[in-house]
Amino acid sequence: MLRPETDIEAGRVAILDSIDNIVRQRGAVDISMTELAASVGMSPSNLQRFFESKEALLEAVAERWFADKIQIMEEVCGSDLPLREKMHAFFARRFASMVQQYEAEPELYKSYLEIGNLHFEVVRGYVDLGDHYLSMLVAEAMEEGHFPNLSIDEAVSLINQMIHTYVNPDAIIAIGTAKLNVEKLGKIIDTMFIGLGQSLQKGDSDRPHMKIVS
Amino acid sequence: MLRPETDIEAGRVAILDSIDNIVRQRGAVDISMTELAASVGMSPSNLQRFFESKEALLEAVAERWFADKIQIMEEVCGSDLPLREKMHAFFARRFASMVQQYEAEPELYKSYLEIGNLHFEVVRGYVDLGDHYLSMLVAEAMEEGHFPNLSIDEAVSLINQMIHTYVNPDAIIAIGTAKLNVEKLGKIIDTMFIGLGQSLQKGDSDRPHMKIVS
Repeated sequence: MLRPETDIEAGRVAILDSIDNIVRQRGAVDISMTELAASVGMSPSNLQRFFESKEALLEAVAERWFADKIQIMEEVCGSDLPLREKMHAFFARRFASMVQQYEAEPELYKSYLEIGNLHFEVVRGYVDLGDHYLSMLVAEAMEEGHFPNLSIDEAVSLINQMIHTYVNPDAIIAIGTAKLNVEKLGKIIDTMFIGLGQSLQKGDSDRPHMKIVS
Repeated sequence: MLRPETDIEAGRVAILDSIDNIVRQRGAVDISMTELAASVGMSPSNLQRFFESKEALLEAVAERWFADKIQIMEEVCGSDLPLREKMHAFFARRFASMVQQYEAEPELYKSYLEIGNLHFEVVRGYVDLGDHYLSMLVAEAMEEGHFPNLSIDEAVSLINQMIHTYVNPDAIIAIGTAKLNVEKLGKIIDTMFIGLGQSLQKGDSDRPHMKIVS
């Protein structure tokens, strides 16, 4: 007899919580389903009722990690915000969520990033999903005349590169939140909206403009 | 009796070449001066004639890694190129040098990055030196009216963040040269010159501009 779906769901959440604890204690070690079953006090066959395979388990770990980021992207893209504010929220809210997650438990955050790097095949779909949502925003921006002279793919790639330190979860560790903050992110997004894809005026680099006096 | 400086120099270069070979074979392992002496067929005291300590050796390794990047920065900053071309050369030539180094021996490149991350105290001075040269270019740009509404430090920090994937040697590995190229780098630099520090026109994100029709 099948148990109700909710019991299975509750069991999965409990196992994922246990994995948090295992990662807290041991870091990003690679453990087998047999070891995991022992760690959570289950028989291997019982564990399999919740997660069929290690792949299914890793997918569930990734799903949990990305859940709030996906929610943010869906909310922002579906909102009525003006476009620039949408683009800002799209990046700033996810960045803020990563910072919060990092600051709550830096070691756990680092270990999960290591696990993600070791199993990038599980992460790749989420990276592609982020590009998909960004493409929608870029298409919307192009309808309004932004990012001229570029294809959607080119604009997405250039934006991803310019904003990389605010999207890449490793950057919070490598660069740190003393240097990365939402205010600077906003200035980078403004810079993109004003300049990305625009043609430089001839002589822009030589012509004397206003002189800075203070 | 002291040997001529040139003999010492030649010996140092030979030892650094041997270290390349050791890193090729063993990767980014941490070896002692005693082990290194054995590997290069010297007595520990003879090795010390060339490198007084492991710190001195690591500094020499870093110096060799950064030598061409420093030469590029010095050449570009001292040149008569128009400012935008200077900024472009400042980043593009170093990026091209890293790509060449990576493509010549990807595994050696990765191992040296690992060594650099393990001994970041040796690398930090070179990162600061890059910021110093960039500050000079930014100050020059501000004299011409670029990057208004920002301090030099703010502009340097924002430029470093927008250009991060072209300066950070890890990015070549993590993102790859299929996505990172000099043409895109040029478009990012143009975007900075047009937009960085400029004020958004009110309603810039809502006002319908030219519509893209193809």
